[in-house]
Amino acid sequence: MEPLITLTTDFGGESPYVAAMKGVILGLNPRARLIDLSHQIPPQDVRYTSFFLRACIPYFPPEAIHVVVVDPGVGTERALLYVEIDRHRLLVPDNGCWNGLIRPESRPPTVFRLTERRFWRPTVSSTFHGRDILAPAAAHLTLGEDPRNLGQPFDDWIHLETKPPIIRPDRLVGEVIFIDHFGNLITNIPGPAFAALHDQQVQIMVGGQEVSRRVRTYGEAEKGTLVALVSSSGLMELAVTGGSAQKKLQVHVGTPVIVQVVSPSNPGA
Amino acid sequence: MEPLITLTTDFGGESPYVAAMKGVILGLNPRARLIDLSHQIPPQDVRYTSFFLRACIPYFPPEAIHVVVVDPGVGTERALLYVEIDRHRLLVPDNGCWNGLIRPESRPPTVFRLTERRFWRPTVSSTFHGRDILAPAAAHLTLGEDPRNLGQPFDDWIHLETKPPIIRPDRLVGEVIFIDHFGNLITNIPGPAFAALHDQQVQIMVGGQEVSRRVRTYGEAEKGTLVALVSSSGLMELAVTGGSAQKKLQVHVGTPVIVQVVSPSNPGA
Amino acid sequence: MEPLITLTTDFGGESPYVAAMKGVILGLNPRARLIDLSHQIPPQDVRYTSFFLRACIPYFPPEAIHVVVVDPGVGTERALLYVEIDRHRLLVPDNGCWNGLIRPESRPPTVFRLTERRFWRPTVSSTFHGRDILAPAAAHLTLGEDPRNLGQPFDDWIHLETKPPIIRPDRLVGEVIFIDHFGNLITNIPGPAFAALHDQQVQIMVGGQEVSRRVRTYGEAEKGTLVALVSSSGLMELAVTGGSAQKKLQVHVGTPVIVQVVSPSNPGA
Repeated sequence: MEPLITLTTDFGGESPYVAAMKGVILGLNPRARLIDLSHQIPPQDVRYTSFFLRACIPYFPPEAIHVVVVDPGVGTERALLYVEIDRHRLLVPDNGCWNGLIRPESRPPTVFRLTERRFWRPTVSSTFHGRDILAPAAAHLTLGEDPRNLGQPFDDWIHLETKPPIIRPDRLVGEVIFIDHFGNLITNIPGPAFAALHDQQVQIMVGGQEVSRRVRTYGEAEKGTLVALVSSSGLMELAVTGGSAQKKLQVHVGTPVIVQVVSPSNPGA
Repeated sequence: MEPLITLTTDFGGESPYVAAMKGVILGLNPRARLIDLSHQIPPQDVRYTSFFLRACIPYFPPEAIHVVVVDPGVGTERALLYVEIDRHRLLVPDNGCWNGLIRPESRPPTVFRLTERRFWRPTVSSTFHGRDILAPAAAHLTLGEDPRNLGQPFDDWIHLETKPPIIRPDRLVGEVIFIDHFGNLITNIPGPAFAALHDQQVQIMVGGQEVSRRVRTYGEAEKGTLVALVSSSGLMELAVTGGSAQKKLQVHVGTPVIVQVVSPSNPGA
Repeated sequence: MEPLITLTTDFGGESPYVAAMKGVILGLNPRARLIDLSHQIPPQDVRYTSFFLRACIPYFPPEAIHVVVVDPGVGTERALLYVEIDRHRLLVPDNGCWNGLIRPESRPPTVFRLTERRFWRPTVSSTFHGRDILAPAAAHLTLGEDPRNLGQPFDDWIHLETKPPIIRPDRLVGEVIFIDHFGNLITNIPGPAFAALHDQQVQIMVGGQEVSRRVRTYGEAEKGTLVALVSSSGLMELAVTGGSAQKKLQVHVGTPVIVQVVSPSNPGA
């Protein structure tokens, strides 16, 4: 079977930079199969990338090599990494963009810093390491190179700072971490914590507005209702049925979301 | 030969949802070849999808499985379908998005409702059936599964309501159904009906403005002229040569288009 | 190994036209592997296309066939071409879009005009030659067809007019030719000419504003500094570290860029 390489960048659809990376990979291994994940990551948005990868990489087979170029530090001394996290293999700049893949049950990741120049392009520009280092490293891996040959074990990788949600029996406090194309607001509140309150009366606030209903799915409420549910990523989500919660609420990534129990549950229920 | 799966969605280029579907397919069948058709379908626009599929699916070989996720009804009781129409095979939500493929000469389509949960992901979210039902169903088909095993024959599928154009010997009345990236306006008036009037004097109106010329191709008129022609999809099209008809006319999908014969043809011609 | 066809168009991501071309290619050669380079080329922008191709095609292996559809002349009598330039093979409209690949050291290109209708779709629309002529020609090449059979040798191809930069020992004058997704400004001044002045004092002006610093890479200057450097494409580039030079300077493609030596170099240095 032909080897798989996925590509995730913030280069934009009109850019020749994505095409150049594809050329470099196919120049080294013309058998490689290339899969575009996205080239529309908001420019240099490492947090978005972390959510993005968390929402898709777990579904891929372990054969795939995932190349990620969202790299605000290009041209500084930041490291470039080969990362194995659970069964998945990534080539990334060292900025924490892959941290969303670390789950409570994950084994410790294996991380190498890419230092072996013989796997890079002969001339390395100072501003496009995606083309000159990550793309050829990915191609060499698909040609059977042992990842340990790419560089040195590296433990000092950057941990993405995140503000974890507050989870209490009577109160959940989190924030919007992702807004999708339909205007649905994904929060950092774990779906199970939210679902656990299903038999309690709660008040849900986002951006100063109260959420009308909790539902299991969009279809349960009338069109135009602001609802809360568990998203397909397993996180608490706010949505307007048949519309855009972002447009209705004018909120953004970082807007606080609060779920407050307003009456005690009936312990006999 | 490796099996082909095409993907058409309204998820947008920045979304991890497309990537998640690719992961699910490749997780089940790492040999599958994935072809992006578009992920920029206007959100939940079933009519646009119908035109889109009509303009591209007929060119594909019958080997391909076409997965379409434009699904305003996700989370309601709407069905998910396997459809065979002429030689083409699709997996779609039951909202009529594939109806554009039905032609006067088509044999009746074969339609199954997807009901067999063993071909779905073990956990099915209530908001992302593209990932949890359609993607794994597509992968199973490429692994050789008989489509009849995916579910039950289903005749009660939704027919997309369309306003057919009026075709009279002296008058054609239709509307703009699609506006392309260049601002060309595609109408629902069949090209042959329009072309049949070529030796008659006609007045062509769109959005309150008169069209100057009928041409066979853009190059026949001076730059900036509003022209009518038969589009590459075989429908009557309005265009501004070297410019954008949409910008010039400020029209939109649904704007009426009228072709009126203003003098009788010469029967002896 | 399965044959490679790359696709570069200005059709936009929402368009069925790209999908139709993919269908035509796969209909003729279902084994072809399709690689999207970009479908977001600015509409009908031949100069942009020339820069785009120059920045990516050289990295591809010679096996690939590159189909380019940026075609302001569709529907006129302009030719369609098969081009071999150095090791690369392209199918393009005759508008100079491929000229960026011609380098001083290039051998003369081999160019054929596509005239053999038996390699086209049976019905050729007057407005979509990408689908009806270029796509099937590409498929036939991957099936082993000799390019000489596609048409006639053609020497009279269009040369893209370019304003070459002025390169003098004490003065470089060029212009912005490309602005990337991050707002970096790529100029037509060769990187080596710019780098050769590294030990001289210079004043660098763009859009009426003076550039503060010359750097080797973004990381050398404080955030927000307007810097000049050699880009990853080997051309002089202007950038704002951690920001967008385009937003800061409000310049556009065509804005002049001047590098003026303000004191003689020290010949003893």
